[in-house]
Amino acid sequence: MSNHSVAQTSAPASEPADSEIIESGEFPRSVNWSNPRVRAILEAAAECFSKGGFTATTLADIGRELGLRKSIVHYYFTSKAALVHEVQSFSYGRYLEAIRSSFEARAEGSVGDALSALWGTLTQSSAIRGLNIELWSEGRRDPELRARAETLQDEARALIAQHLGSAGPFTAREADDLATVTLSLLDGLTVLAEREGSDERAHRAFAAFLKLLDRKQN
Amino acid sequence: MSNHSVAQTSAPASEPADSEIIESGEFPRSVNWSNPRVRAILEAAAECFSKGGFTATTLADIGRELGLRKSIVHYYFTSKAALVHEVQSFSYGRYLEAIRSSFEARAEGSVGDALSALWGTLTQSSAIRGLNIELWSEGRRDPELRARAETLQDEARALIAQHLGSAGPFTAREADDLATVTLSLLDGLTVLAEREGSDERAHRAFAAFLKLLDRKQN
Repeated sequence: MSNHSVAQTSAPASEPADSEIIESGEFPRSVNWSNPRVRAILEAAAECFSKGGFTATTLADIGRELGLRKSIVHYYFTSKAALVHEVQSFSYGRYLEAIRSSFEARAEGSVGDALSALWGTLTQSSAIRGLNIELWSEGRRDPELRARAETLQDEARALIAQHLGSAGPFTAREADDLATVTLSLLDGLTVLAEREGSDERAHRAFAAFLKLLDRKQN
Repeated sequence: MSNHSVAQTSAPASEPADSEIIESGEFPRSVNWSNPRVRAILEAAAECFSKGGFTATTLADIGRELGLRKSIVHYYFTSKAALVHEVQSFSYGRYLEAIRSSFEARAEGSVGDALSALWGTLTQSSAIRGLNIELWSEGRRDPELRARAETLQDEARALIAQHLGSAGPFTAREADDLATVTLSLLDGLTVLAEREGSDERAHRAFAAFLKLLDRKQN
């Protein structure tokens, strides 16, 4: 059983019986995000972690959301830590994708337009916002989670800095610093919107920031 | 025992014996921040919550930090929830004080100078930064904590907006929005500095933001 690969498992029908899972033990396994079952578990996990926090959420809770036995969740994710890390990657993957597509869609427009589009995408999912806050808290006690977050943030910052640098009167250093400001402001506005249960004030604040940035460009 | 007041208790010597505490039951009690014992418990609690998160930290853990029995902690704070709320107020009280004193000290200088001073104060304490992240996470599951955070944020925003409004070319609405931007950016930079274990990049980003703000003023 130990070379049973999830990457080749695209349908729940090929999931093993409980007895087989128990025999297989814990072995490293790459998670295939295109597997519908894997995606469903990641999405349910993101919801559960966002709602209850990491400490209080069990693999059984996540399985229950989908009507799955805990052993099936455990089959795809060998431990809760592994699932937390995959949920992080999955969520950051979407975040990077939102940045990329915002800049691509506005290739002809201003950086401000692209950042507005990014803000629009990010405010669509309150589950992702909640999850981010839980990841910051959990990352304070999990160095691997923190290291992974840093890698993903570096990538996000580079994407934004590249566009600020090519579009405005900014030096490479200024573009890098303002990309940090943009990402950190988005994080802080996440906290605000979650606290207020509304995007309204956060939305106005982001618009005010874009005006400052725009003024600098002109 | 039920009218025993902590406000009049300034020395550990007047703490009751365990048997008295058990008899007294849970009764509402105002917490006196000028009581050295109360301050010591609040500071130890802030450290413990910041280090381990709220869920995993017990009143006994906090007592252990100070060499106190759990019953003594319980004497001043009737429940963990009460202690969490007091730690929040204590921490936000310091935050507001940092804002006030930054603006007072720079009464003759620019808003940028005052915000630089505020940034300097906030970056001095990594325990407060860590605690804030834990409070955001906990607040997602505790409506009272969230409501209290909102009140305190409103106060902080009003303080900053007032100074931006009186110092710059901003309308009241712009000053309010830019105060939101400032506070949210400070929150986001907290996340960044905690993740990186260093203030360096956050510091550069805040300076870049102050330059944008300054340009708008001129």
